[in-house]
Amino acid sequence: MAVGEKRSPLAPKAFPKLPAIGGVRFASSAAEVKYKGRDDVMLAELAAGTAVAGVFTRSSTRAAPVLDCQRKIGNTSHESGAAILVNSGNANAFTGQSGGEAVKAITSAVASELSIPEDRVFSSSTGVIGEPLPHERITAQLPTLVTSLHADKIADAAQAIMTTDTYPKGAHCNVQTPEGTVSIAGIAKGSGMIAPDMATMLVYLFTDAKITQQDLQALVSELNETTFNAITVDSDTSTSDTLLIAATGASGVEITARHGGFRDGLNKLMLDLAHQVVRDGEGASKFVEVRVTGALSDQDAKTHAMAIANSPLVKTAIAGEDPNWGRIVMAIGKSGAAAERDLLTIKFGDITVAENGWVSPDYNEEQGAGYMLNQEVVISVDLALGSGQATVWTCDLTHGYISINADYRS
Amino acid sequence: MAVGEKRSPLAPKAFPKLPAIGGVRFASSAAEVKYKGRDDVMLAELAAGTAVAGVFTRSSTRAAPVLDCQRKIGNTSHESGAAILVNSGNANAFTGQSGGEAVKAITSAVASELSIPEDRVFSSSTGVIGEPLPHERITAQLPTLVTSLHADKIADAAQAIMTTDTYPKGAHCNVQTPEGTVSIAGIAKGSGMIAPDMATMLVYLFTDAKITQQDLQALVSELNETTFNAITVDSDTSTSDTLLIAATGASGVEITARHGGFRDGLNKLMLDLAHQVVRDGEGASKFVEVRVTGALSDQDAKTHAMAIANSPLVKTAIAGEDPNWGRIVMAIGKSGAAAERDLLTIKFGDITVAENGWVSPDYNEEQGAGYMLNQEVVISVDLALGSGQATVWTCDLTHGYISINADYRS
Repeated sequence: MAVGEKRSPLAPKAFPKLPAIGGVRFASSAAEVKYKGRDDVMLAELAAGTAVAGVFTRSSTRAAPVLDCQRKIGNTSHESGAAILVNSGNANAFTGQSGGEAVKAITSAVASELSIPEDRVFSSSTGVIGEPLPHERITAQLPTLVTSLHADKIADAAQAIMTTDTYPKGAHCNVQTPEGTVSIAGIAKGSGMIAPDMATMLVYLFTDAKITQQDLQALVSELNETTFNAITVDSDTSTSDTLLIAATGASGVEITARHGGFRDGLNKLMLDLAHQVVRDGEGASKFVEVRVTGALSDQDAKTHAMAIANSPLVKTAIAGEDPNWGRIVMAIGKSGAAAERDLLTIKFGDITVAENGWVSPDYNEEQGAGYMLNQEVVISVDLALGSGQATVWTCDLTHGYISINADYRS
Repeated sequence: MAVGEKRSPLAPKAFPKLPAIGGVRFASSAAEVKYKGRDDVMLAELAAGTAVAGVFTRSSTRAAPVLDCQRKIGNTSHESGAAILVNSGNANAFTGQSGGEAVKAITSAVASELSIPEDRVFSSSTGVIGEPLPHERITAQLPTLVTSLHADKIADAAQAIMTTDTYPKGAHCNVQTPEGTVSIAGIAKGSGMIAPDMATMLVYLFTDAKITQQDLQALVSELNETTFNAITVDSDTSTSDTLLIAATGASGVEITARHGGFRDGLNKLMLDLAHQVVRDGEGASKFVEVRVTGALSDQDAKTHAMAIANSPLVKTAIAGEDPNWGRIVMAIGKSGAAAERDLLTIKFGDITVAENGWVSPDYNEEQGAGYMLNQEVVISVDLALGSGQATVWTCDLTHGYISINADYRS
C-alpha cells in the first residue's frame, strides 16, 4: 500500500504461497529511487539454459527499458544465465538520451556482478515519467542483492515492484505431464495508472519447464490477447507495460507450444494475475466481466466488449448500481464494429434485459437493480451476426478514481 | 436547468438575442412527455422553397427519428414548406418497431396540420432510451403549437429541447454579400450525456440564404468535421445526435458552397455552438483546447488530439490543476497514430514543457502549475513529422461527472 491507499475491496484475501521454481532465485532491497523505507528494487537470477520471452506495450512513446528488452528478446543465446532487474518509483520514460544510458548502466552492472552477458539482462522501471532515473542508487545495491538471492523470495519481489498498488499480486500452478510435474509462478503489479504520474503494468512469470524460446514466445503472445490484453481499467495505456516469462528447464520436462496442459495452466495463471490487476483498479468497487458473442469476428467482438468496458457512462452506471442497459446499447452503437440494432440480446447475469431491438417483455427494473447490487457483475451481449466472441474484464468508475487522479497533486 | 443542476461555471453570461430568420417560425409547448411544468416540444415551420440538410450520429444503434431523417434528407422536393419537430424527455431509441411507428404518427400529424408532404417533416427525440415514446401527447399539442408559431420564438425553442443541460445554447451571425445580407441563427442542446439515460446532441440552424440542398449538405458535412465532430465530453457517442440546417431563401441572396463569407460565418457559428456544448459538459470546471500540429495527416492529428482529449488521466490531471505532461506523452503513445518520441514538443499555453524527448531545460513545475489554474487551458503538441493538424475541444473530468452519472439512480 505504497501511498496509504486502503486495500481494494475486490482484493484476494491474502498473497498466495508461491512454490520455488527450479533455476530461479530472487532478491529485493531498498535503493530509495523515490520511496523511502520500503524495498523498491527486485532482482531475479535465472539459471543457464533459461529461455526468456515477453510482450510489451505498443505505445509509440515507450520507455527506455522497454525498448532495450525488445531489442534483446529472442536474439540471445540460452546457454548462459540471465537476469531480470526491476525498480519502482521512476519509469525512466520520456527521459531522452539519458534514459537509454541509465538502462545500459544498470544492465551492464548486473551482467558484470552475475558474470553473464549483458544481452541476457532485462530491466523494467515503473513510476514517475520524465525524471532521470538515479541508476547509481540501483547499481549500488547490486552486491547486497546478489548475496541475498534465494529461491523463496518471490513474495518480497512482488512487494518491491509495487507503486500505488493496494496489494501485491501473485499466482501459480502445477502442470502434470507423463514425464513429471512442471511448475509456473508469476507476479504482477499495476492497477491502470493509479496515481499522478504513476503508470505501468508489469508481469513476471517463471517456470521450470524445458521449452524453446520460440515456443515460449508464441505461447505467451497468443495467451496475452485473451488475458492481459483483455483487461482495461481506464482505457489509458502505459508507456512501460511489460510481461516477461522465463523458462529455466530445471524440471527436465520438455514442453512445446502445443502442450495442452501447459497451455491451459499458463492461461489460467495469466488470467488470474490479469484479474488481480483489475481488482486493484483505481477506485474500483465492482469487478465486471463483459462477454460478447455472435459477432462477425473475434476482433469485432473484442471491439464491442472494449467499447462497453471503457465507456465512462457504462462504468459510472455500474458504480451507481443502475441497470442502465441503454448505455450498453449506446456503447455497442459507437464501437465502429458491425451490429444490428434489432438482433441484439443483452443480459445482466442470467437476466435477459433487451432483445429484438427493445426491452425484454419479461424484464422488470427491480430485477436488474437487484442484480446490480452484486460486487461481481457479468454483462453479456449477443449480436446474432456470426460466431465471433470475446470476453474482457474491467471495474467501475467511481469518485475514488477522481480522488486518486485529480485530488492529489504530483 | 432541467434537473436542478447549477448553471455550468463555463456558461456564457446570457442567451444571445437571436434575429428572426425570414421564412422560419417557432413554437413550443408543454406536452409532458416526461418533464412536468416546462416546455418539452418545439416546432419550427419552414417556408416553401426551404432547403434542408443534416448530419447524424454514426452509431449503429441509432434512434428511430434519426433513421427517418436520414431517409428523407436530400430526397425531397424544395417546393413545399417543411417542418422540424423536437421533443425532450424521451429519445425514442431502442424502442423496436414501435419507435418507427411513433415517428410516423408524429410526422404525419405535423404534415397534415401544416398541409405539407410528410417527407418534408423532420423529427428528433432526446431523453430516456428504451421507453416507448407517448407520441399522442405530442400530437395533441399540435393545434396549440401551430396557432402560436412566431418568428421571434427561437429562444423558447432552445429551452424546450434541453434535457439536463444547465443553460440553453444559441448563436447567430450576419454575412454581408454584394447582393445583400444573409442571416444565420442556430440553437443546440447537449453536454455529452449528462444524466442517467439522457443522451444526445441536437443542433438546429436556420438561414435565409438561397442555396441548393446539395451545396448546403456539402458545406455542413465539411464544417461539421472541425466543429461538432471536434468536441468530446466523455468519448461516448449518442444514439440520437442530429444536426439539421434549413435555408429558406427569404433573403433572396444566392449562396453557393464556395461562398467564402457564408462558409466563414457558418463555421464560426457552428464552432460557437459546439463550444457552448463543451462548456456544459457534465461536471466541467475547465474548458480545454487541444491543438496538434506536425502530424503525417490531418486525420492522424485528430486521432492524437482525441486520444489526449478523451484520456481519463489527462482530464483528471486538468481537473486537479496538475501540469502532468507525462500523461499527454502517454496519450500520444497509445493513440495508434504515428509519433516519434524524441521529436515531440508539448506546450501548456505559451510555456514549452517538453521537447527533444524530455522535459524542456527552461521549464519549471511552478510555471506549469500556475498556468493550470486558468479556467481555459490550451495544450499544444507538435509532432514534427509532417503538416497535418487538428484542434479539438473538451472539458475536464471531475467528481461532478461521477455524481451526475453514478450517484443518481435513473
